[in-house]
Amino acid sequence: MVDKNIIRALMVETPSIPGNLGRLATAIGMAGADIGEIETDQVGPTSTMRKFTVHCEDDDQLKDVLKAIEELGGGIRLHAVSDDVLRAHEGGKIQMKSRLDVRSLSDLRRVYTPGVADVCRLIQREPQKAQIYTSIGNTVAIVTDGTAILGLGDIGPVPGMPVMEGKAALFDRFAGVSGVPILVDTKNPDEIIQTVKHISSGFGGILLEDIGSPHCFEVEERLKNDLQIPVMHDDQHGTAVVTLAAVISACKSAGVDLKDAEVGQIGLGAAGLAICRMFMAYGVKEVYGADKSDMAKERLIGYGGHVCDSLDELMETCDIVIATTGVPGLIKPEQVRKGQVLLALSNPKPEIEPEEALKAGAAYAADGRSVNNVLGFPGIFRGVLNARSGQITHPMLVGAAEAIAGCTKPGELVPHPLNPLVHEEVAQAVEAVAIRS
Amino acid sequence: MVDKNIIRALMVETPSIPGNLGRLATAIGMAGADIGEIETDQVGPTSTMRKFTVHCEDDDQLKDVLKAIEELGGGIRLHAVSDDVLRAHEGGKIQMKSRLDVRSLSDLRRVYTPGVADVCRLIQREPQKAQIYTSIGNTVAIVTDGTAILGLGDIGPVPGMPVMEGKAALFDRFAGVSGVPILVDTKNPDEIIQTVKHISSGFGGILLEDIGSPHCFEVEERLKNDLQIPVMHDDQHGTAVVTLAAVISACKSAGVDLKDAEVGQIGLGAAGLAICRMFMAYGVKEVYGADKSDMAKERLIGYGGHVCDSLDELMETCDIVIATTGVPGLIKPEQVRKGQVLLALSNPKPEIEPEEALKAGAAYAADGRSVNNVLGFPGIFRGVLNARSGQITHPMLVGAAEAIAGCTKPGELVPHPLNPLVHEEVAQAVEAVAIRS
Repeated sequence: MVDKNIIRALMVETPSIPGNLGRLATAIGMAGADIGEIETDQVGPTSTMRKFTVHCEDDDQLKDVLKAIEELGGGIRLHAVSDDVLRAHEGGKIQMKSRLDVRSLSDLRRVYTPGVADVCRLIQREPQKAQIYTSIGNTVAIVTDGTAILGLGDIGPVPGMPVMEGKAALFDRFAGVSGVPILVDTKNPDEIIQTVKHISSGFGGILLEDIGSPHCFEVEERLKNDLQIPVMHDDQHGTAVVTLAAVISACKSAGVDLKDAEVGQIGLGAAGLAICRMFMAYGVKEVYGADKSDMAKERLIGYGGHVCDSLDELMETCDIVIATTGVPGLIKPEQVRKGQVLLALSNPKPEIEPEEALKAGAAYAADGRSVNNVLGFPGIFRGVLNARSGQITHPMLVGAAEAIAGCTKPGELVPHPLNPLVHEEVAQAVEAVAIRS
Repeated sequence: MVDKNIIRALMVETPSIPGNLGRLATAIGMAGADIGEIETDQVGPTSTMRKFTVHCEDDDQLKDVLKAIEELGGGIRLHAVSDDVLRAHEGGKIQMKSRLDVRSLSDLRRVYTPGVADVCRLIQREPQKAQIYTSIGNTVAIVTDGTAILGLGDIGPVPGMPVMEGKAALFDRFAGVSGVPILVDTKNPDEIIQTVKHISSGFGGILLEDIGSPHCFEVEERLKNDLQIPVMHDDQHGTAVVTLAAVISACKSAGVDLKDAEVGQIGLGAAGLAICRMFMAYGVKEVYGADKSDMAKERLIGYGGHVCDSLDELMETCDIVIATTGVPGLIKPEQVRKGQVLLALSNPKPEIEPEEALKAGAAYAADGRSVNNVLGFPGIFRGVLNARSGQITHPMLVGAAEAIAGCTKPGELVPHPLNPLVHEEVAQAVEAVAIRS
């Protein structure tokens, strides 16, 4: 999902005259950028220095913004443009830390030799003790081959590292999970699987991340079968969890009964197919899908879904429609059915603008800006690790989606991702299902 | 190296009568245990509660200690025995942490999507930027197959995890390096090498750890050849660095000229052979070795060393003798040459007790209790990572040994491992050599 992903901090001085801040904000907005935080840096006797965080689609748009500010005149001056994102990434975003102090020789003898030998022998005698006396049970490998990094495609594992580090940082901040990026330098499914299997005993779970379709299916399925620890491809099931949560909330808003609905999924890529499976697991009336690829359609049928031969047919058939095609404007207003719930999730431009869909009669419409995987994976893994579950099942994922929906305020699609309660509720829901089963 | 590795905390109450602490300490010592820290827990009106950290060789010795305390009488009472080592290991010793705060939506957009996409694209265009904007350049994989964990042997990778976590904790505390344990579940050198190669792009270096002989040689050599990042087997070269440092200091104490000396190594296992190579790299007159294994002797000759056919011959020939055989009492006093420098490094019992060797005429004698790898690896990797060196060479390792020796106080064999200066000096020495070459 590529969004407005050029973020810059602009230091701008405005004379202390009412209306200047408004003029400046208008100029930035009219040039096409989104404005994030505005921080006041200095208040002088005649002017104020502020830091504007702006989000642009590309470098050209950024140039337009800078030009628009410079052309404002009236004493408004652009002093500096800095790249806070890049600065935040300097030295990397994560670091393995000792949980213990090592301040005396006694500490050293406890955490290292000779004390450690006793712990090694204990685990040798009773292997399950590794859960207690090592970090394995709290550690998740974040594995990528770099073939589907965000919406950027097959850019390779090393360029994908900032995403893996981001996941690890969020694992830490939201769920206390120790996330370890593992960059695999092969796209061959057999080699990926072999490699992950060979190192899997050091981890309590595997998060597959940004692995391209269709080999992501084989990689995930075989690892799930062969390993005794939970494995989840976030781009499939993490996305599907958050989508189901969003649809539950959307149906509540629109007064639509989701369990009795026919759900249509446009675009049967990795995320689309996982969304279909998630709705089947949740228990809707029927799930329909549309895609150009025959292989994708066969997969859907294999999972128990129905195929629509055209977009028209799907739009006519379904009460609820989700689109993840990456094709802006794919859905025409005349295809929208009265009372339909529509989630056009492609970024940066949805398949149909929510306003258009509502005007055409939809009961509810939203784009994918707020539908972020970060609502799911930290709590999902916290839950399975707490339960020491060997797998992540669809009932657990449905539990996670319901927990997210339960934390959503009326009128919103999903909760705020920085609300710590969400991650706790997801973890508890997943753990509860895991322990029951 | 298995030492006195059963560590317990004993809570003992002694009536406030002069001499009681002495009686107690004597009883513990006479039962064979070493006493570590003694902390005063409570001072009452008539008695004092203290926590004694005791180190025992095995459970039987611990039982003897407890019995000896209980038999003391005179109001001395053992209240509790606790396993502080195990308690310190609960939940594991390490955790991946975010280096950045994630407190606002802006923070989230910076460290994760959409901001991160810009960083990914930058690295795709300019791969060397990964050194700056990811944690790769500060991260070292600590790789083991579990075949030679401490002195415990082939106990498997998971039981070896506490050692790997210990290394990671010390990497963090002493050098700010992010150490990631990688447990490989195969002993097949080809599979170990393939696995490490497939995940190597996520790391700035590889520390091979507790991998058995002889396959450790092949694994290290092939990884060094095939990878563009530094690779070091700590049990070989880390041990050799600290040994060279100890011998430099021992020679200074004894007034022996190391560069002009004939050095003998008894025991040509992984550590022994690496010690031989380190002395050759340092530039001593000749290096001799003795071992039962023909393969080991051939390796030594391949590296440029000489083989002695008997222990007698080696002891007669060499000015400086190092032993790493694991055989207590192997060296007889009558074999010691006058003026010899003798380091009998096997733990828990050396090849010859230092006092015996000195009585027999040695100019200097020591056992291996203080010779700890922790003096080497953190600074060595800090140095090569700082220099962005693609390899660790013998000149760098000699530089590290000289830096350790430079931090050693007169009369001591090696510096205190908790002296932060040592690790800084090692890092600077290694970095300087790396940049020069």
